[in-house]
Amino acid sequence: MLVVKKFGGTSVADKERIFNVARRCIEDYKKGNEVVVVLSAMGKQTDVLLDMARDINPKASKRELDMLMTTGEQVSVALMAMAMDALGVPAVSFNAFQVQMHTTAVYGNSRLKKIDTERIRTELENKKIVIITGFQGINKYDDYTTLGRGGSDTTAVALAAALHADACEIYTDVDGVYTADPRLVKDARKLSEITYDEMLDLATLGAGVLHNRSVELAKKYGVQLVVRSSLNNSEGTVVKEEVKMEKMLVSGVAVDRNVARISVIGLLDQPGVAFKLFNHLARHNINVDVILQSVGRDGTKDISFTTTADDCDEAVEIVKRHGEGSLKCQKIEVEKEVAKLSVVGAGMMSNPGVAAKMFEALYDVGINIKMISTSEIRVTVIIDDKHVEQAINSVHQKFSLGEN
Amino acid sequence: MLVVKKFGGTSVADKERIFNVARRCIEDYKKGNEVVVVLSAMGKQTDVLLDMARDINPKASKRELDMLMTTGEQVSVALMAMAMDALGVPAVSFNAFQVQMHTTAVYGNSRLKKIDTERIRTELENKKIVIITGFQGINKYDDYTTLGRGGSDTTAVALAAALHADACEIYTDVDGVYTADPRLVKDARKLSEITYDEMLDLATLGAGVLHNRSVELAKKYGVQLVVRSSLNNSEGTVVKEEVKMEKMLVSGVAVDRNVARISVIGLLDQPGVAFKLFNHLARHNINVDVILQSVGRDGTKDISFTTTADDCDEAVEIVKRHGEGSLKCQKIEVEKEVAKLSVVGAGMMSNPGVAAKMFEALYDVGINIKMISTSEIRVTVIIDDKHVEQAINSVHQKFSLGEN
Repeated sequence: MLVVKKFGGTSVADKERIFNVARRCIEDYKKGNEVVVVLSAMGKQTDVLLDMARDINPKASKRELDMLMTTGEQVSVALMAMAMDALGVPAVSFNAFQVQMHTTAVYGNSRLKKIDTERIRTELENKKIVIITGFQGINKYDDYTTLGRGGSDTTAVALAAALHADACEIYTDVDGVYTADPRLVKDARKLSEITYDEMLDLATLGAGVLHNRSVELAKKYGVQLVVRSSLNNSEGTVVKEEVKMEKMLVSGVAVDRNVARISVIGLLDQPGVAFKLFNHLARHNINVDVILQSVGRDGTKDISFTTTADDCDEAVEIVKRHGEGSLKCQKIEVEKEVAKLSVVGAGMMSNPGVAAKMFEALYDVGINIKMISTSEIRVTVIIDDKHVEQAINSVHQKFSLGEN
Repeated sequence: MLVVKKFGGTSVADKERIFNVARRCIEDYKKGNEVVVVLSAMGKQTDVLLDMARDINPKASKRELDMLMTTGEQVSVALMAMAMDALGVPAVSFNAFQVQMHTTAVYGNSRLKKIDTERIRTELENKKIVIITGFQGINKYDDYTTLGRGGSDTTAVALAAALHADACEIYTDVDGVYTADPRLVKDARKLSEITYDEMLDLATLGAGVLHNRSVELAKKYGVQLVVRSSLNNSEGTVVKEEVKMEKMLVSGVAVDRNVARISVIGLLDQPGVAFKLFNHLARHNINVDVILQSVGRDGTKDISFTTTADDCDEAVEIVKRHGEGSLKCQKIEVEKEVAKLSVVGAGMMSNPGVAAKMFEALYDVGINIKMISTSEIRVTVIIDDKHVEQAINSVHQKFSLGEN
C-alpha cells in the first residue's frame, strides 16, 4: 500500500515533535507500506521569514518572497530525513525542484499543474521513506512559487493523485472534521465521514481543517482523504464521494474570521461596472468571496464584497485607484471586524427550509445579518466578528448538530 | 564592465549590513556596470542549522546536511534582492538549481564543474542586478551539494570565469592580504599585489582570506581577484599571475590552527602500507596535509599526518578500522593542539636559505618543530598551538616583513 501523509507546521515545530512524526511514519513503513511524507515549515518559521522580509522591504516582490519562504519546508524535510535515519530507517528529502513540482506562473498563490513522480518511485523502490516539501512549486521560469494558504494539503493530495496512492492522510492539530469549531461550540461533534462537496464548502468557509484547493483536487482525482490528529491515534474523518450513513440536513457550521468587507458606494449604474471592478481585483490575484450589489437608485448603485483580511488593504488600494478613476465611485467603506458564518450540508438540496432556520437562530439571539450568500448545499451570512461565538452556538443548537 | 562581487556571512548578518552591501553593489550598477553578487548564509546561520542537525542526528548524512545548509544562502539572496528593490534597483535572486551550478557528486565538499550562464545573462540584459547563492551546487542526481569551507569564494570565481567577468571582488572582514594575521602580528603589512601561487600557498596554509580552491580556479581561468573589505573603501590586494614590484624573498607568514596530527605507530614495513592507509582516507574524502614517514626499524615504521581538526575524529575512526585490521598497526596517537606555520614567497625558488632562516627564528624563541614540509615557494612546520603567537612574530621579524 502506498500512503501519503501530510503534517503541518505545528507537528514539526521542535525536535520532539519531529521525532514523533518520524515514529508515526516509520510505524506505517514497518507494516510494509510505501510512505511519502509531505511537510510544512517548522512552527512559526514562515512568519519569522515573512517578518524578516517585511523589515527589509514592506513591498517585497512576491517572486522574492517565495524564494525566501520555500527555505522553510526545505529545513523541515532535511531534519525529518535525519530523524528517520537516526531511528534506523532510510529516508530521503526532496524540494520542489527535485520532484519537478510544476505550477502556474503566478507567485504567492500558485496552482499545481504536474508532478514528476519518477524520482519518488525510484526511492520508494529503494525502500526509502520519501519526504517532500509541501506548499512550494516551480513555474515555467524555473522560479519557486508557493501555493498560498493550506498549500501543503494541496501538495499532499496532488502527490497522492500522481502516485495513485491508496490513502492520503492529512494530520492536523484537531482529530477530524467537527460539526463546528470545538473551541467555540462545546457540544460540537466529530463527523466520521463527509462528502467532498460538504468538505469543500466547509473548507472554503473557514472550518480551517483542510484547504479548499486540496479538497477540490481530491474530488477531481477521487483521492480519499483522512483528516487525523498528529497528537493521538483516534480515527479521524474520512472525506470521500459518497457517505454511507443517512444524510443529515446540515453537517456542520463553519466560521471564517479572516474576512473583510469592502463597500464601493455610488458607482455609475451602467453595464460593465461590476465586470471592470472585479476584473481589476482578479488581475491582482485577489479572491473575492461574497458579493452583494444594491438595486440602482438615482443613476448609481453600491457594490459590497468580502475578501480575506490579508488581501483587504491591497484590494482597497486597487479599488481606490480604479474606482475613483474610470468607475467614478463616490465613497469606499471598509469593515475589518466581520466574520463569515455558514451552514453546510448535502441534505440541504432537497430541503428549502435551511436558510430560514439559520436566520431564525441568529434572530433568536438578536444578531444582525450584513450580507447573505447561498449555494445548493450552503447558507452563508456575514455578521459582526464580536458576535461569532454566540451565533455559532445558536445555529449549532438550532440544527441539533450536537446529537448523534 | 561585468563585475562579480562576493560577500561573506558577516557582511550580510543583519538588516543594516544587507543594506550596506546593497548600496555598495548599486554604486557599481549606477556606473553602468553589470553586477553579479554572490552571497554566503547570514552571519552564524550555517552554524545554527548545523546545530539543529546535530541535535537531531549527530551522524546525519552529508546529503541531508547539504539539503539543510543550502537554505542559508537562499535566505540571504532573497533578502538582498528585496533590499535592492527597496532602494529602487531591480534585482533577482537565484539558487543553484536556477543557474544549474553543476558539481561533482560528492556531498559536503563538492567541486564545481559547469555553470549555465544563460539565465544570468538574460537578467543582466534586463538591467537587473543578479544575486546568486554561494557555497552550493547541484550534482548529477539533482541533489544539493555544498563546496566545503570558503565555498562562496569558489562560486564567485567560477561565475567570473564562466561569465568572462572583467573583475572578481572578494569582500571580507579584512581589507586585503597581509604579511601575517594582523591580530597576531602587530606590524603585519598589507600587500598591494600577490601572485596566484603565493596566494594559493597562503590560502591553503590558513591565511583565511581566500579559499585555496577559489585561487586555483582563478589561476586556471586567469580571473584577476581583488580582496577587499566590505567595511571600508581601501584598495585591497590584487591577486594575479605576475606582480610588477620586485619579488620579495617571502610574501607572508600563514597560520592554520584548524589542524590535528594523527600518528600511526608500528605499521608493518612493507610496500603498499602508505597507499592503503591514505587510500582509505581519500575514499572518505578526508584531506590529508603534511605527511611524515619514519625510517623503518625492527620491521615496522610509523606514519604521521595532519588533517583539519574537523576531519580528525572521522580520520581516526577510519585509521582504527583499517589500521588495526589489515595494516596491523600497534598504536594510534592523536594530537589536536597543534598548528601549522608557513612562510610563502615566489622569491624562495632562487634562494635556498629560507627554510634555515625560518628554523632559526623558531630556535631563537625555543619552539620545538614537530613536522616539516616544503614546496618550491613554501616552508611549513607543525608546532604546538600554544606557541603560535610567539612563533609567527619571531618569523615575521626575522624576514623583516613589517618593512616596506
